Amino acid sequence: MSEKDFIYLDYAAATPVSDQVFEAMKPYFSENFFNPSASYLPAKHVRRVYEDAKDELAHTIGAKGNDLVITAGATESINLAFTVLKNFKNANCLISKIEHASVCEAAKNFASEVREINVDKTGYLILKDLESKIDDNTVLISVAAANNELGTIEPLSDIAEIVRKVRMDRLSRGIETPLYLHSDASQAMSLIDIYVSRLGVDMLTINSAKVYGPKGIGALYVGHGIKLSPITFGGGQEMGLRSGTENVPLLVGFATAAKIAKEHVNGNRKKYEKLSEIFKKTLVENLGDIEPKFLGNKKHQLANFISICFDGLDAERLIFKLEDEKIYVSTGAACAASKGQKSHVLTAIGLTDSEINGSLRISMGKMNDEENVKNAAKKLATIVKNEWERIHG
Amino acid sequence: MSEKDFIYLDYAAATPVSDQVFEAMKPYFSENFFNPSASYLPAKHVRRVYEDAKDELAHTIGAKGNDLVITAGATESINLAFTVLKNFKNANCLISKIEHASVCEAAKNFASEVREINVDKTGYLILKDLESKIDDNTVLISVAAANNELGTIEPLSDIAEIVRKVRMDRLSRGIETPLYLHSDASQAMSLIDIYVSRLGVDMLTINSAKVYGPKGIGALYVGHGIKLSPITFGGGQEMGLRSGTENVPLLVGFATAAKIAKEHVNGNRKKYEKLSEIFKKTLVENLGDIEPKFLGNKKHQLANFISICFDGLDAERLIFKLEDEKIYVSTGAACAASKGQKSHVLTAIGLTDSEINGSLRISMGKMNDEENVKNAAKKLATIVKNEWERIHG
Repeated sequence: MSEKDFIYLDYAAATPVSDQVFEAMKPYFSENFFNPSASYLPAKHVRRVYEDAKDELAHTIGAKGNDLVITAGATESINLAFTVLKNFKNANCLISKIEHASVCEAAKNFASEVREINVDKTGYLILKDLESKIDDNTVLISVAAANNELGTIEPLSDIAEIVRKVRMDRLSRGIETPLYLHSDASQAMSLIDIYVSRLGVDMLTINSAKVYGPKGIGALYVGHGIKLSPITFGGGQEMGLRSGTENVPLLVGFATAAKIAKEHVNGNRKKYEKLSEIFKKTLVENLGDIEPKFLGNKKHQLANFISICFDGLDAERLIFKLEDEKIYVSTGAACAASKGQKSHVLTAIGLTDSEINGSLRISMGKMNDEENVKNAAKKLATIVKNEWERIHG
Repeated sequence: MSEKDFIYLDYAAATPVSDQVFEAMKPYFSENFFNPSASYLPAKHVRRVYEDAKDELAHTIGAKGNDLVITAGATESINLAFTVLKNFKNANCLISKIEHASVCEAAKNFASEVREINVDKTGYLILKDLESKIDDNTVLISVAAANNELGTIEPLSDIAEIVRKVRMDRLSRGIETPLYLHSDASQAMSLIDIYVSRLGVDMLTINSAKVYGPKGIGALYVGHGIKLSPITFGGGQEMGLRSGTENVPLLVGFATAAKIAKEHVNGNRKKYEKLSEIFKKTLVENLGDIEPKFLGNKKHQLANFISICFDGLDAERLIFKLEDEKIYVSTGAACAASKGQKSHVLTAIGLTDSEINGSLRISMGKMNDEENVKNAAKKLATIVKNEWERIHG
């Protein structure tokens, strides 16, 4: 399938492995395939490559290789982060109301109580609500760096500041229960700075598959002194936290992808801000009287996300009709959408069922440019107008 | 590194991805990279490719695609199998004394009691011992199809027959506790028939990385009606048992590798029986008075495994000296060896510490032929003789 054949606008669901990443991985599938735990020289070389890739990857978030646990992807990283709760009886955790299914489900399964933090109508976390829900049994707060349906960037450093204050307060009262902040940065890595120290997180999930790296590999950054429990048991790799032969080609791919992502954070932001503007402008200009509602947060928004609501229309139908034009977008999280679940994210920001029904997510990436973004907006406008006329006559 | 530069004899630790497998995976990294859960046509195509690969993979073990849970590798598959114990209070499980670390550790962590079944001095499971250790609380028996250090092929269908009898007996006494047989077939897939019905297993772990497929993907065959619990929680993929975006390229690679492995089972066996004979003969002929002890089971043995003991010598030294000649072998499981642990497998078959110290594992594969196997045997003989003289004067 050639790039010109279609316009892909669902980068939040999946990204293609970039050529550079593919070339970097390639030698480690067949040529340098050795088990990194073996004792002979070529295997030791592969071990070094693995550790170097880990350092390189860690470097992109301002950490050291030893701070990372390499996993099979974001879901596993998130689950591993939540095992911190196993060390405490009656521990509760706080998650935002708009977290990805993997955070919601991990929370349910690892915490004795899950408290949900409200967000405003832009999907931005309400800090007051967070503060009010922390008590002395709160051990973990998990808030995505950026939401996967709206693209809203969450105020992690403000949360970190609250966490710091709570810790001080606990210390002063002789309470030893720790409070940790975890963030799933799966969607954010190529668009915002995710240095752990600046974000103020104790744990951070990063994901290769969303930054033009291979699927099947992710990492969890774990701050010093945080005790996690392995989810699977075996050979004891990754400091005993994640057993299984180390995956050299995929880690090399991930590290390469992360490095490229980091190098282009500013360029990407500018590119997508411009494309986003063009898309929105073209769409509005071509829609006539119909007014789309742009969701998300104007100020705190991943530049490549455009979430649009056409109240009264059926987004599923719009998507099918866009598909006829070889334009690919989605309603939201692929894993939820495929099961026909109503978006809990759009519910949380207060949309009515009719509004939720009419919402679609556009997420831009590498293959998009002014021309195809403009084309997509025009086509969408035409489809929306036709649908509008079909329904309203 | 060209194939002629070295002689690799550690295929039990890692196999290179074959060209055919690599070519099969390739289009799914970049070209057809879509999220299989997305709704547009190219994504649905990718979903079909994924399900077809699953069917194809299942077919190689005489099962259906729906019987498989795709995981990130053998360790995860094994752990998932052991979650069956979560459904029962006070459940015990039986494992052979020579299981891989992943089985030993999973057993420890998921069972309230682990009973170890003895093996004879060839590593062959003692069925009487197994029978005597089953009681009404035994829910799971886990025995590898073939041992990863000795290559001994275990009597799975005999075990299955015992399981069948126990089930009948429980049924007649109105006891509803089930008894399941799981086997880790990681090492066996390219050398013996691993049809689930013929082996008589209820669950089977298979592993891409040992059959010239990519690392980072495995599967668990799960017989009908067996209830497992997910280890990680999230999007609910793989029938809710294994969350995380489906890995299309790696599964396509695994299925291709498994298909090739199955097609060549007979050819492989013949090839390696011959190479094994040549290796042993050449070694013995060139060793003079020194008599090596070949470990494992003459009758029930993976044809590509040669486990040799030189009592009184230090296998680590032999391996380093072989490495100088660019011949790569190992002492045993890479993950254990790298930590300097004494092999629990060799202990279980009754070897003395001195014998364990002098044991090495040779595992042959694709790049081996008569010439390089003969060369390796000659070099090993020379090295052994030199070491012998150094020690015994």
